[in-house]
Amino acid sequence: MADRTTGGPSLPGATVFIGTKPVMTYVFQVVAQLNSGAGPVVVKARGNAIGKAVDVAEVVRHRFLEGQVDVGPVTINTERLVNRDGREANVSSISISLTRTTPVPPRTESTPAPPAPPARPS
Amino acid sequence: MADRTTGGPSLPGATVFIGTKPVMTYVFQVVAQLNSGAGPVVVKARGNAIGKAVDVAEVVRHRFLEGQVDVGPVTINTERLVNRDGREANVSSISISLTRTTPVPPRTESTPAPPAPPARPS
Repeated sequence: MADRTTGGPSLPGATVFIGTKPVMTYVFQVVAQLNSGAGPVVVKARGNAIGKAVDVAEVVRHRFLEGQVDVGPVTINTERLVNRDGREANVSSISISLTRTTPVPPRTESTPAPPAPPARPS
Repeated sequence: MADRTTGGPSLPGATVFIGTKPVMTYVFQVVAQLNSGAGPVVVKARGNAIGKAVDVAEVVRHRFLEGQVDVGPVTINTERLVNRDGREANVSSISISLTRTTPVPPRTESTPAPPAPPARPS
């Protein structure tokens, strides 16, 4: 399954799909989206990645943006997929919505300004 | 981690903790609780079992009690546990509430009546 991030800073919201990369990869994607002022970010996962989606939301909430995000609503569902053999299979999915409750910080560390030109001896 | 089922038919609600047993084991526990009229059943899991908790709720909703249960609210959290080495670790958790929307069926297959006494030739 490919990891996809749809929506950018100019859209009203963004979705981060959880795949096989490490938790922190997705944590940084979510934090970047929330800091871009894009609106609510929805973390989505299917099957084995569901636990990781919960980890991502919890790490964002408790470690990176403590007291600055609301988590929820959380919804669960079943998706019907066709696997490689052409057979249909039911797979559980989860959607976790994260919304910033504080203003977006001014651009500092997350989007550094271009480096200053090197100082030249006059 | 032990699998526990707290609360019985006489309590206002019940909690089913998801552990290492097969999904269907927990599905039957949840269905039995919902059919006992015990009120909302909360499915809880931590860490690796989170995906299984979602599977349990979805199987109950779509296969066993289709159109008869409301799923939600779903809440996620972080629990601080002490592992075997005495170190603290953060573990994600999930709670999924399931509520029956239709009346509890009369007792039939799930709680069979005691067998009739053997017929005696008179």
